Amino acid sequence: MAKEKKFVEAITSRDEDFAQWYTDVVKKAELMSYSSVKGFMVIKPAGYAIWENIQKELDRRFKEVGVENCYMPMLIPESLLQKEKDHVEGFAPEVAWVTQGGLEPLQERYCVRPTSETLFCDYYKDAIQSYRDLPKVYNQWCSVVRWEKTTRPFLRSREFLWQEGHTAHATMEEAEERTRQMLNIYADFAENYLAIPVVKGRKTDKEKFAGAEATYTIEALMHDGKALQCGTSHNFGDGFAKAFGIQYTDQSNQLKYVYQTSWGMTTRMIGAIIMVHGDDSGLVLPPKIAPTQVMVIPIRQDAEGVMDAAQGLKDALKAAGIRVKVDDSDKSPGWKFSEQEMRGIPIRIEIGPKDLEKGQCVLVRRDTREKETMPIAQAAERAGALLLEIHDNMLEKARAFRDSHITDATNYDEFCDAIENKPGFVRAMWCGDEACENKIKEDTTATSRCMPFQQEKISDVCVCCGKPAKKLVFWGKAY
Amino acid sequence: MAKEKKFVEAITSRDEDFAQWYTDVVKKAELMSYSSVKGFMVIKPAGYAIWENIQKELDRRFKEVGVENCYMPMLIPESLLQKEKDHVEGFAPEVAWVTQGGLEPLQERYCVRPTSETLFCDYYKDAIQSYRDLPKVYNQWCSVVRWEKTTRPFLRSREFLWQEGHTAHATMEEAEERTRQMLNIYADFAENYLAIPVVKGRKTDKEKFAGAEATYTIEALMHDGKALQCGTSHNFGDGFAKAFGIQYTDQSNQLKYVYQTSWGMTTRMIGAIIMVHGDDSGLVLPPKIAPTQVMVIPIRQDAEGVMDAAQGLKDALKAAGIRVKVDDSDKSPGWKFSEQEMRGIPIRIEIGPKDLEKGQCVLVRRDTREKETMPIAQAAERAGALLLEIHDNMLEKARAFRDSHITDATNYDEFCDAIENKPGFVRAMWCGDEACENKIKEDTTATSRCMPFQQEKISDVCVCCGKPAKKLVFWGKAY
Repeated sequence: MAKEKKFVEAITSRDEDFAQWYTDVVKKAELMSYSSVKGFMVIKPAGYAIWENIQKELDRRFKEVGVENCYMPMLIPESLLQKEKDHVEGFAPEVAWVTQGGLEPLQERYCVRPTSETLFCDYYKDAIQSYRDLPKVYNQWCSVVRWEKTTRPFLRSREFLWQEGHTAHATMEEAEERTRQMLNIYADFAENYLAIPVVKGRKTDKEKFAGAEATYTIEALMHDGKALQCGTSHNFGDGFAKAFGIQYTDQSNQLKYVYQTSWGMTTRMIGAIIMVHGDDSGLVLPPKIAPTQVMVIPIRQDAEGVMDAAQGLKDALKAAGIRVKVDDSDKSPGWKFSEQEMRGIPIRIEIGPKDLEKGQCVLVRRDTREKETMPIAQAAERAGALLLEIHDNMLEKARAFRDSHITDATNYDEFCDAIENKPGFVRAMWCGDEACENKIKEDTTATSRCMPFQQEKISDVCVCCGKPAKKLVFWGKAY
Repeated sequence: MAKEKKFVEAITSRDEDFAQWYTDVVKKAELMSYSSVKGFMVIKPAGYAIWENIQKELDRRFKEVGVENCYMPMLIPESLLQKEKDHVEGFAPEVAWVTQGGLEPLQERYCVRPTSETLFCDYYKDAIQSYRDLPKVYNQWCSVVRWEKTTRPFLRSREFLWQEGHTAHATMEEAEERTRQMLNIYADFAENYLAIPVVKGRKTDKEKFAGAEATYTIEALMHDGKALQCGTSHNFGDGFAKAFGIQYTDQSNQLKYVYQTSWGMTTRMIGAIIMVHGDDSGLVLPPKIAPTQVMVIPIRQDAEGVMDAAQGLKDALKAAGIRVKVDDSDKSPGWKFSEQEMRGIPIRIEIGPKDLEKGQCVLVRRDTREKETMPIAQAAERAGALLLEIHDNMLEKARAFRDSHITDATNYDEFCDAIENKPGFVRAMWCGDEACENKIKEDTTATSRCMPFQQEKISDVCVCCGKPAKKLVFWGKAY
């Protein structure tokens, strides 16, 4: 069939056309599908299952640190969105407006939430009265809409899924601590769960969230050398509290404003997984997030004992806590191998009549394609260990790639050359002036990704204007 | 404090003013809060945690029967909504319309999904080509918007959370089987997890879903004698497939239309839990759904050993797989008891210095308020067993209430008297004519809830018009 033929054709090579490779993988691994709604996508089961695993693990980590889930309205009245000046300026140009409810035009138009600071503030102003009501550490899992002009699957679409945490605290110190704590959870999750190494740092004022006092970020490097912002955590100080009137009486009966934070991670992480780990055979899923960790593929499944052995392997792996499936479809083994590779399943186990004679099976890891032959009875234990090895190897490989794609620049020629010719992060000193960020963006399209927490002084002067330098900055082209 | 004083005031009695009682419980158990967005509510952590448990258990049951989760766009272009005639007539009057995206007016307006049949169909028409692509058994967890004129927390609001399953099959028989399978899952979940007994049946054509060939429903009886539709499952036949052109080639290469189903359960179930089980002290949560199953309340927590013993109890219960908390706040024990009762936590364990002397503690069950004194070492095991007993008792009690609130009527006077004076379901025969349903609704405000699967013939003639009867129908006033 034409449909089947299409599948086996090689996908575009990563190095030939990265953007096309990305689109090919997203489609052929059946992660998403374009919809009739311009800029909106359908997340298909294989993609959504990754998101479910991200949710499960993040939610578990959130609850460990006292986060409570709740749910706020999907729509925001225009007057509410306008209460915080910087916030409305940042978001109003890119929201979708509801102007009619049922058969009646609305008296005030509502936007579909692009983010929910205003709703949480509106709620907190009544829910918080006394120091006894603090802290509030709430989070919601939901979808948001931002009317982007150009869209790409998972990376930038008019609707995406995310979690948004919103907290309120008695003191600035406590808010700052929470802001950093959540960033650290994101960083740890990215590295130890998705095998994606990140740079942690603070956004410049130009790049920070609309209405935030400080935005912290984790930035990862994709295979094409572009940066991807993977999660952000914002300290709002008491700015929103003053705009919305969120006050509490402290222990000495003084009326005070609260300090707030928000933090979010999105379905964009699926894009990060694809672009950090994928190869020319398709997706390579980090084992801890893979919905199916092992695919058992019977060879000549009509031969006596083969299907029983495959089923036995499945049972043994399942009993060992591994997410495992048997591909018992009527496709050829070669076809099944390609599919398992395209879908990024970390390990396949091949078992056929010849293996059965010797009481053995073959484990093939997706990341390196190495094969191991072993007694069937040892497969479950070995697969469990191998999943951890694969995670470690993927993280190590991604870290080595990232580290070998960081260039230091101490003058503007070096800087422009590096941005132009050396894909990756460019480390360079900055004077702190937004004019230099603007010039760099105009000249090179690169943006400041973050001022890393681990500051070093690699030069005394700003790479752009030559004035005294204040901060080391990671620069790069970004998604 | 005024705020605290308010809490201990008795809530409205259930039998005095059920609607006010409901609102009081919803607020004082901190399940939800009204928002600044008219008709939209904030689901607070105590309410959302119930929904999370509903999701977890339903999702587990869905996956056991092959359901795969996915995610469709939140917005539907008007032209897509209009493709199926009955469907658009049913929903168009109550949707919210997005007319502007970013700074530009939209060329075509989009509605916020009130349900997603049209989006799934639009997707399936491309995704399904061959019999190999069938069945598709997809589900999504999301929020939907319906512009209701009058709203009530959890029962009817302009936005609610739900799951919506949408399936496509090769044959009508398979679609029918899936429709009933999912209804049975809802019924089993309601009874064995929420302790809510239900009547299963089919909706009349007047009451069925817009665009469905058959709608099946589970109907439960609330404490005030009103019915609540708790979950529905629809068989669409090939109506949507024909409207959207969803065809597949079968094994003999013939082009055929698919047969489809959809089925959903919503946050309305939280309202059902409140109205079936609650009492004049507040919420009574079914143990299997209760976010906290046991609250350990130390008496004189300053006394030596009391907090240690409370903590020890918590650890022992947690080890036994019970969701347990210690209330170590600085409130009085009486206050804590009231709170635990208001929040509907199934069991509290009291432990104070006098208990400690005797090495014992007191278990108090929320449903009957019975107390049991026992050695501390036995508390965990007993609590585990007691949770099951409480579930059984709550289901039994709700079933007895339901069964004692069903009245049979064989003529119109009896029928009107029963609807007027005997809160609950009225069973009566019906000729199958919509005119009789309309007359009954006009005369009594009652509607046909369902034609139960277990049909009996309690009279030969329609209770309304006297013509030959076709079906036994459960009638009732409904939310």
